[in-house]
Amino acid sequence: MKNRLEQLSQWLKHENIDFALITSTENIFYLSKYYSNPHERIIALGVFQNDEPFLICPKMEMADAKSAGWDFELLGYSDIENPWEFIRNAIAKRTTTINTIAIEKEQLSIERGEMLQKLYPNIAFRSIEAILNQLRLIKDEAEISILKEAARLADFGVEIGTQAIKEGKSELEIVATIEFELKKKGVRDMSFATMVLTGSKTASPHGTPSVDEVQKGDLVLFDLGVIFEGYCSDITRTVAFDHINEEQKTIYETVLKAQKSAIRACKPGIEIGSIDKTARDIIAEAGYGDYFTHRIGHGLGIGIHEFPSMNATNTDTLQPGMVFTIEPGIYVPTTGGVRIEDDLLITESGVESLTKFPKELMIIK
Amino acid sequence: MKNRLEQLSQWLKHENIDFALITSTENIFYLSKYYSNPHERIIALGVFQNDEPFLICPKMEMADAKSAGWDFELLGYSDIENPWEFIRNAIAKRTTTINTIAIEKEQLSIERGEMLQKLYPNIAFRSIEAILNQLRLIKDEAEISILKEAARLADFGVEIGTQAIKEGKSELEIVATIEFELKKKGVRDMSFATMVLTGSKTASPHGTPSVDEVQKGDLVLFDLGVIFEGYCSDITRTVAFDHINEEQKTIYETVLKAQKSAIRACKPGIEIGSIDKTARDIIAEAGYGDYFTHRIGHGLGIGIHEFPSMNATNTDTLQPGMVFTIEPGIYVPTTGGVRIEDDLLITESGVESLTKFPKELMIIK
Repeated sequence: MKNRLEQLSQWLKHENIDFALITSTENIFYLSKYYSNPHERIIALGVFQNDEPFLICPKMEMADAKSAGWDFELLGYSDIENPWEFIRNAIAKRTTTINTIAIEKEQLSIERGEMLQKLYPNIAFRSIEAILNQLRLIKDEAEISILKEAARLADFGVEIGTQAIKEGKSELEIVATIEFELKKKGVRDMSFATMVLTGSKTASPHGTPSVDEVQKGDLVLFDLGVIFEGYCSDITRTVAFDHINEEQKTIYETVLKAQKSAIRACKPGIEIGSIDKTARDIIAEAGYGDYFTHRIGHGLGIGIHEFPSMNATNTDTLQPGMVFTIEPGIYVPTTGGVRIEDDLLITESGVESLTKFPKELMIIK
Repeated sequence: MKNRLEQLSQWLKHENIDFALITSTENIFYLSKYYSNPHERIIALGVFQNDEPFLICPKMEMADAKSAGWDFELLGYSDIENPWEFIRNAIAKRTTTINTIAIEKEQLSIERGEMLQKLYPNIAFRSIEAILNQLRLIKDEAEISILKEAARLADFGVEIGTQAIKEGKSELEIVATIEFELKKKGVRDMSFATMVLTGSKTASPHGTPSVDEVQKGDLVLFDLGVIFEGYCSDITRTVAFDHINEEQKTIYETVLKAQKSAIRACKPGIEIGSIDKTARDIIAEAGYGDYFTHRIGHGLGIGIHEFPSMNATNTDTLQPGMVFTIEPGIYVPTTGGVRIEDDLLITESGVESLTKFPKELMIIK
């Protein structure tokens, strides 16, 4: 963590920014190992060019921040104290020249921006997101090994899910079974609400599981992931229950071909947009172009959807250490949908899939 | 919903604000019944003084928005389209006088504020939160009946949890059992990460369940809730496993007395701060004042922590239809902590507890 804080201090010097005030759960975790979702309360990490950083959190979370390993200044405020006064004092102790502050413009609310502006009326805000995205983009060895374990747990979740498919079982019962077995393995949080969709509901990329029961002939779509030591996994598999019709099969094979081709295209130096195009061309050629309604994937790490966005217009190139999803899908209203998603790591020479659950068409009997 | 949108239009007229752009999951749900967590994508609801409202969401979610019942204009954008152009066009169709926009200043990011400012360089922003907080503050009959069901499910969750306590069971296994049974009943999402804490970990108000196993003599703290039809419940119970020592018992009885007294004090017209004080005085008198490190509670509804904040400095008064938590706690490092929390509804004549799980000291054998 000290290295990351140091890199940020260097950047502040280079950009001639007086200090940074970081306020998102994810970036605070990245820089301090303290992981907190403070709801409407504020948590903030102050980073300076030369002075010691400080962390402020609700008083009742101070012990958690300490036990996460934070050993610089730690401030706690109660529910009737004003955290902005603590922040102002902590800053005043360190520096009185305050012309420019770096903040997370995509995360900090306008309300909080106005609070800062009240404290320092002549201040200019700079966005810190680009540098933090760049730092977080390339995963180090420790992060990769955590992401691999998160992916293994996602594989296990899909395995449990496929085993739980039985006539009369509801989507939510299958979700419950998956999460039960994962929690028994020590998983506290899923990286997003586990999705198990059956039948025509698979045609909704962001559908909601319900008490609908799985029927023979249904496609069953699993989209799930876990948070392991602060890092996310994200896998999608679609299977058929009992039997599959010709159109479902064509859709499945098209998505699988598109997904495998996109993965094969991944290696250092390749433009991100071209990965999307590889999959999209295959799907369009099969006549389903209008039914692939989202990008090919997204960056993955502390955030479930983090930088970069893996879309058709992204001209950035892949680099070793990047981790992201590849998840083409075809969604045909009433007929149903298929999505296949893996978590990929760019290596020096190519690409490695962190999720490994089989993806050839599986018909659950 | 139309009535709520109409109230907002009236407010815009009264305040002479050209239109409102609402962007939070919660307020969009309140006004449209469309519930979506769009992650980094944008969803927005445009409300005008006289013109028809519009809703914009990712293209792949349009079917979900329609099936939620949205029957005004609906716009969808793909991952390579710019949603701000759609927003600008939708606004231009309705009005060309744009001097003042109401936004959620506590929710909208500085980045998105700058995007709006780019579209309308001379615009002034007004905060819409106060009026939305006021509208959401008083729950109508339909909301109350949903909140009651959410509370019943929370009671059931605690019941399952207390039954799952056995020597050798880990905190996460108990969490898994609770959520498994709730999902079987059709609950898709918990209102926050279910908390089961044992032993000295109960001393952390925001602690994290782990593979730590419950031991005889432990206090075991449950804090959980569900989302039912978009509304949250939130209950805390603390029980003892096998036996309890004198200090734990004193803490328990003090918290229980404080909680019951605070609830008894609740009725229309009473100042919120005084409710906090009622509980705090009892805890301070017992010598534990320094160990009650948070406010007495928070508003509850679509949001798990919503307006109002039930803290010592709040001079607002209780009104019929308000729903909130009362949750005093005492947290003594190493010894452990106790918190007891119910969801309360202010009625015409007093108060009704929506959560009903017993709260007399329970020793699980």
